[in-house]
Amino acid sequence: MSLHGSYDEQNIFAKILRGEAPCVKVYEDEHVLAFMDIFPQSQGHTLVIPKDAARNLLDVSDETAKAAIVRVKKIARAVAVALKPDGVTITQFNGASAGQSVFHIHFHIIPCWKNQDIAGHGATGQADMEDLKALSEQIIAAL
Amino acid sequence: MSLHGSYDEQNIFAKILRGEAPCVKVYEDEHVLAFMDIFPQSQGHTLVIPKDAARNLLDVSDETAKAAIVRVKKIARAVAVALKPDGVTITQFNGASAGQSVFHIHFHIIPCWKNQDIAGHGATGQADMEDLKALSEQIIAAL
Repeated sequence: MSLHGSYDEQNIFAKILRGEAPCVKVYEDEHVLAFMDIFPQSQGHTLVIPKDAARNLLDVSDETAKAAIVRVKKIARAVAVALKPDGVTITQFNGASAGQSVFHIHFHIIPCWKNQDIAGHGATGQADMEDLKALSEQIIAAL
Repeated sequence: MSLHGSYDEQNIFAKILRGEAPCVKVYEDEHVLAFMDIFPQSQGHTLVIPKDAARNLLDVSDETAKAAIVRVKKIARAVAVALKPDGVTITQFNGASAGQSVFHIHFHIIPCWKNQDIAGHGATGQADMEDLKALSEQIIAAL
């Protein structure tokens, strides 16, 4: 998989951005959309996606990267306040070999707890939508 | 380990920033220093550290976060051009439970190759300094 391939408008995040696929939303503004990962690696795993049609961080403008990281920081803080994890892992994968499975740029915010490994990417099943909604409400309240 | 503990001026990255400990430098400006990780998780594993006395991303200003991500992107691109990995993983750990071991904010840039897992954090020994210097020169040439 090329790091700089063409952008597929049918990827699931593009569909979510267009409102053609559902998500449990946490935050949205003109630059980004943030929502709960439906295959969470921990309780509260949240995704932040810039609205650009870009595959990964290597492809975006400085302005997009800046807008994204400020929202990642803001939402990571809200996750930390809401869910009181012992740590927060932030990952951003570029290319299938790096673990990227959806080829629209995204940042993972994964809260971590002591003595509790985060699940492998895709190792858990799909989350219960009501559980995600409850988590999103806690995070939104802390934004 | 608290997410918002006090900053220890004696952490190894603070020493590197003050020139009291060595590093194999890749890039430096007024905002960040980038250098080769001496316990690399893959060939070309590079760290980008803001110059602020801050433990993690949750503690820094928007300006620091923006300056950092623009340099992370720039250096990740150079790593990709220089070393031609199949992917690039970017990680940023906040708190010991998230995998953070040095409590000065830092971003990992980890090139990845097909069918080759990246090593666990700290799983490999200390890299050979000459090898790191050669890798840094390749990355610098691509900046």
